[in-house]
Amino acid sequence: MGAATLSPGLAALEGQPVAAIDTPTLVIDLDAMERNLARMADFARTHGVRLRPHAKMHKSAALARLQMQAGAVGVCVQKTSEAEAMVAGGVRDIYISNEIISPAKLRRVAALAHELAARGGRLAIAVDSVEGIARLAAAMATNNLAPDQAPPPVHQDSEARPAAIDVFIEIDVGQGRCGLPPGPAAVALAQAINRHAPLRFAGLQAYHGRAQHLRGVAERRGAIGQAAESIERTRALIEAAGIPVGLVTGAGTGSFALETASGVWGELQAGSFLFMDADYAQNERDPAQPAFEHALFVKTQVMSVSAEHAVCDAGHKSHAIDSGLPRVHALPGQPALTYANGGDEHGLLRPTQDGGPLPALGDALWLIPGHCDPTVNLHDHLIGVRGGLAQGIVERIIRVDARGALR
Amino acid sequence: MGAATLSPGLAALEGQPVAAIDTPTLVIDLDAMERNLARMADFARTHGVRLRPHAKMHKSAALARLQMQAGAVGVCVQKTSEAEAMVAGGVRDIYISNEIISPAKLRRVAALAHELAARGGRLAIAVDSVEGIARLAAAMATNNLAPDQAPPPVHQDSEARPAAIDVFIEIDVGQGRCGLPPGPAAVALAQAINRHAPLRFAGLQAYHGRAQHLRGVAERRGAIGQAAESIERTRALIEAAGIPVGLVTGAGTGSFALETASGVWGELQAGSFLFMDADYAQNERDPAQPAFEHALFVKTQVMSVSAEHAVCDAGHKSHAIDSGLPRVHALPGQPALTYANGGDEHGLLRPTQDGGPLPALGDALWLIPGHCDPTVNLHDHLIGVRGGLAQGIVERIIRVDARGALR
Repeated sequence: MGAATLSPGLAALEGQPVAAIDTPTLVIDLDAMERNLARMADFARTHGVRLRPHAKMHKSAALARLQMQAGAVGVCVQKTSEAEAMVAGGVRDIYISNEIISPAKLRRVAALAHELAARGGRLAIAVDSVEGIARLAAAMATNNLAPDQAPPPVHQDSEARPAAIDVFIEIDVGQGRCGLPPGPAAVALAQAINRHAPLRFAGLQAYHGRAQHLRGVAERRGAIGQAAESIERTRALIEAAGIPVGLVTGAGTGSFALETASGVWGELQAGSFLFMDADYAQNERDPAQPAFEHALFVKTQVMSVSAEHAVCDAGHKSHAIDSGLPRVHALPGQPALTYANGGDEHGLLRPTQDGGPLPALGDALWLIPGHCDPTVNLHDHLIGVRGGLAQGIVERIIRVDARGALR
Repeated sequence: MGAATLSPGLAALEGQPVAAIDTPTLVIDLDAMERNLARMADFARTHGVRLRPHAKMHKSAALARLQMQAGAVGVCVQKTSEAEAMVAGGVRDIYISNEIISPAKLRRVAALAHELAARGGRLAIAVDSVEGIARLAAAMATNNLAPDQAPPPVHQDSEARPAAIDVFIEIDVGQGRCGLPPGPAAVALAQAINRHAPLRFAGLQAYHGRAQHLRGVAERRGAIGQAAESIERTRALIEAAGIPVGLVTGAGTGSFALETASGVWGELQAGSFLFMDADYAQNERDPAQPAFEHALFVKTQVMSVSAEHAVCDAGHKSHAIDSGLPRVHALPGQPALTYANGGDEHGLLRPTQDGGPLPALGDALWLIPGHCDPTVNLHDHLIGVRGGLAQGIVERIIRVDARGALR
């Protein structure tokens, strides 16, 4: 025991007490995470909706497999290299819920589709242009990877199936980013997809990211209601052209009960519920959604104390600040503190109330990151703790397999 | 050639044209970087001041060695694990310009000090508390690393020297973070350092981060002038107690000509000048400082185009946004575009002038990150290009050795 026995880069070893975890480090409260996992799985089961959590959040194949064991049909990712990391980690049902345009990347996408088909799994992808469909079809037709880039051989006993890829048309339902406008434009794309044998038109991608962060339930309900109307209209146009729309997939942690209640969405992509973050916790909670707990924390240490403030060793190289600064999570007996930005490697801690106590040099503190996804992406490992942050034990080290998988 | 022959994770191979670099990827314009390197080295030589650039910016041992070949005396780092990465990469003179309080980390610091001493190098560290000095001294005295954590054996012919560590007292000269207030408090710390044989009091750490980002030269001059006065006063008190103050070290890219002109600082820690970023470029330039060029770019690709905007594949998992969003760097013939935040994996591009053209699907674009340090920390490699962004060739792949080295 003791940090002197750690291999370089690891902040803790399995079996160590929480006190031995080096700082700054991302720590998962496994008990809280597993409760979040069960609550979301229960919700999906109860409401008869498929759950395909977004792995861009945790980027860990082990957590993806855990989610699938709890009933998820597979995972979403945003990037080709994330999909590759998930396949390498044993995940067999993956949806790249994003547009891929580069021919070089599309060759890798095609290789993954072939590999997953051969292993009895499947790959899906989103498109929003005829050009994107043509490039995808060209890559699926040739799949001309160099020998050293070909996927590893499949099990001898698995029967090779003709590779195919499920294709979803992204509709911009209010996010204002990728996707076609709702309406007739999607019909031509559905027809274009069906002209290419290895491509199967699978349905519509409809994610309203902005709605996730509207604070009031009523505002979110209005935004998702409009999105549902847009999708219904678009679906009707495609089906009027004789093309069935298999599935509508989307939704996030901020609003998924609304998408579910609409009856329009058949699959939920929420990811953040597993860890939660300070930003989502600011939403007025929809009583139709389960309550999720914070399960993701930065353990940090006080490295300097002055008359006015304490300084901890976690700055924005330890946690993303795009959705606000972290909140200090005071354990019983710890002072109430407010975190202010101290730059890349430091945080400034001040008493939440004037005249309140400061922590002492060397004290451990716990932060709740503002935004879980880009925070996880800064770390190679998550330290999974059982039994709470005060007295718990490191139970498992979770590798962030797709850390930095940007391409 | 072609991306299909890339090893996983690498965005390009040496010898490929710029067009083959996968996206999003951090690209270094080597010609611009080398001009920045030479300008800064010339400045330090001309003004008779030591240059110890901050490696927290590039986190690359290869670039640290390049800087030392150009005349730098060594590098600064902020973290123990950054120092370890630099030592592993052959750097022998390292200053941890930050406080380390954890006994486990201080054992690693002591091991590095022993290793560097044995190899003819040296390690230095900053302190701002008597407790920190006592902990450092305890670690230096025992250096009780487990056998599997001991540094690799030194060359047979190198003579083991008694390990020692240079210790700088950090003074808060306006940054408002770590450090003692200017004045008599530093005297007791200098005395405390000198009570421990392996510790050598080496001088004062005086870095005014806030001053770096004051936009006007006059404001920066005022801030650095006050800092200089604070340091002079503190130095006089320490020397009046019979303890020589060997060196004052500090300064950054925003203000180093001012610290130099004051005659107080003997060593400059500027790091960002090598790559520059959109934030430092907003400073009114001090004619006493060399002009630096942007040498760090995110290559990104247009993945979706709508009537209102284009979407590129670089979001804030590709570049840090703590100091503002990236600027679009239009190559000759490319449209003038403004980047808006599209989330973790996307950027929204709109014409800078109403009615201006949008780029086409698949087009490559170049971004200048807002802040170089945390942007580099998101990437495992920097792709070094020779001959410009339009027509250049990938000359070298630079590993970000200390990527994610937070502890």
